[in-house]
Amino acid sequence: MNYGIAIHGGAGTILRSSMTPEKEKLYTEALKKAMETGYAILEKGGAALDAVEAAVRSLEDCPLFNAGKGAVFNHKGGHEMDASIMWGKDLTAGAVSLIKHVKNPVSLARAVMEKSENVFLCGEGAEEFAKEMKVEFAGEEYFHDAFRFEQWKKAQEQEGVYLDHNIESDVRGRMSEENTKDGSGIGPGTSDIGLSIDKKFGTVGAVALDKDGNLAAATSTGGMTNKKFGRVGDSPIIGAGTYANNHTCAISCTGHGELFIRSVVAYDISALMEYKNLSLREACEEVVMKKLVKIGGEGGLIAIDKHGNIELPFNSEGMYRAMKSSSGVEKVEIYK
Amino acid sequence: MNYGIAIHGGAGTILRSSMTPEKEKLYTEALKKAMETGYAILEKGGAALDAVEAAVRSLEDCPLFNAGKGAVFNHKGGHEMDASIMWGKDLTAGAVSLIKHVKNPVSLARAVMEKSENVFLCGEGAEEFAKEMKVEFAGEEYFHDAFRFEQWKKAQEQEGVYLDHNIESDVRGRMSEENTKDGSGIGPGTSDIGLSIDKKFGTVGAVALDKDGNLAAATSTGGMTNKKFGRVGDSPIIGAGTYANNHTCAISCTGHGELFIRSVVAYDISALMEYKNLSLREACEEVVMKKLVKIGGEGGLIAIDKHGNIELPFNSEGMYRAMKSSSGVEKVEIYK
Repeated sequence: MNYGIAIHGGAGTILRSSMTPEKEKLYTEALKKAMETGYAILEKGGAALDAVEAAVRSLEDCPLFNAGKGAVFNHKGGHEMDASIMWGKDLTAGAVSLIKHVKNPVSLARAVMEKSENVFLCGEGAEEFAKEMKVEFAGEEYFHDAFRFEQWKKAQEQEGVYLDHNIESDVRGRMSEENTKDGSGIGPGTSDIGLSIDKKFGTVGAVALDKDGNLAAATSTGGMTNKKFGRVGDSPIIGAGTYANNHTCAISCTGHGELFIRSVVAYDISALMEYKNLSLREACEEVVMKKLVKIGGEGGLIAIDKHGNIELPFNSEGMYRAMKSSSGVEKVEIYK
Repeated sequence: MNYGIAIHGGAGTILRSSMTPEKEKLYTEALKKAMETGYAILEKGGAALDAVEAAVRSLEDCPLFNAGKGAVFNHKGGHEMDASIMWGKDLTAGAVSLIKHVKNPVSLARAVMEKSENVFLCGEGAEEFAKEMKVEFAGEEYFHDAFRFEQWKKAQEQEGVYLDHNIESDVRGRMSEENTKDGSGIGPGTSDIGLSIDKKFGTVGAVALDKDGNLAAATSTGGMTNKKFGRVGDSPIIGAGTYANNHTCAISCTGHGELFIRSVVAYDISALMEYKNLSLREACEEVVMKKLVKIGGEGGLIAIDKHGNIELPFNSEGMYRAMKSSSGVEKVEIYK
């Protein structure tokens, strides 16, 4: 039996020309670490569900990615995070949105799935549930990141709402010119630990197939910089941002959430395989490179099918991604 | 070109044996009124989007149904309403959840669709958007209904979370015995206007096809009695509770929301038609009578396809429903 895992750290305008070898190394290492964390679980015979949760937690804990610790600021200067998880074995699922103080939203989503009668909990109510479940909380200071704060101030000045990648080059340009002497982009405006240099679309995710043939998927996000009105994207929406079904595949998406919701992207891949007998590759091509492109839905997804085939399609400039499978394939990639 | 509309006022344990002719008449009249309101728009050449919004507003304004005015009480004794709408012409959509003070949540969902960059707004943020949009608000007193309040107190005593229909017979029995002299169930515990006698599953919805061949769907709900933790069901989830696509069909669901989310019910009907070439009837049979039954997903849905065919399948005891089509078919039904 094949097994394997794929992860993503967001898609968007990620150009080789705007990367330095140092930044590239930081991203590559973080992706590799998350991938290896999940893969180790699968290798020992662990469940795909544990593998995707562990991989996503690793990405949530890393300030490079817009989820958990690296979550962007919303319009009010706070953080609102969304996450979801689905278990292909029995089609159970859990999702949370507008979470402000939970360290690892993906684990809260899993608690909703396993320890509540519900699938989707939202806002303060979801945090009340988190308290009852004794899920780990984190204060505002944990989520505060100097780069994210700069990003947000810039967005506020322009009264814009941004996907993570939209103002990346602006902010980086500004920081390089104004805040640093060496032009590296690492200056007083960046995070203390010097990691939050280069930012992108705002989502992380993982999909996995374990030795028992069970599929799982998980997604987590910090949303859009300066977002207003309790906006919720596709990440916590089962069928849109996340889906897993042992009969077909497991999917985690990253992209322009509104268009991914309207296109029911994650379930659409599964439906094309189940109803039209497309392969995973053909289904991904159809949805990401044709249907989404047609309506301007920028982004991508990671996918694994019940045989362990892995696809990492995206229609944007780049997507932080990694995969490792028992068949010996291993990749950590950023650009097209 | 055929055109037509279908509406529902919820599904669940609705038995002929527990109905009186008086109660039946009230429901029938309310369903007919909502259906005629939407149909009149279609007949005059209006848009399916206007027809479904108007029909759902009519049901939201009626205290018999668990949406808008008739919304049930949540755990904290307040109201949290969800709604969504989708336009099959261009696959645009709008959804809101955990709305407390908006008179017609379906119209707020439409404002999100047409006047924001987003698809899904949640909680206080969504109400801030509603204020900017000058959507009509209503105070707690508008949503307060004596029958709903009794239902909630009963649920609180038993520390239970109920779908609307679960405690219906209990509460009705209790009210008949304790609160009324004539056994009609109409007593001091019921609404002032004497309408809130018999309650069921908690959702309303409408689907329509207009003369221009455009499909639309809308759904609205007051959620589950005594629900906690900011629980969100399938009603505001595009793909689960609501979906419309001019190439296939328009769908609005009512049932056990968690199972409808996990099954991506509304989009599944569309996918079966598009990818497997099933007819609307075959797709409804497959999803409602087979797939949902298999996982215990009680409920039903209303569906109209691009040719004007209408299906009203449900796997529960009953579903409040009505339909009217330009081909001359007209129905208002409650039981199996």
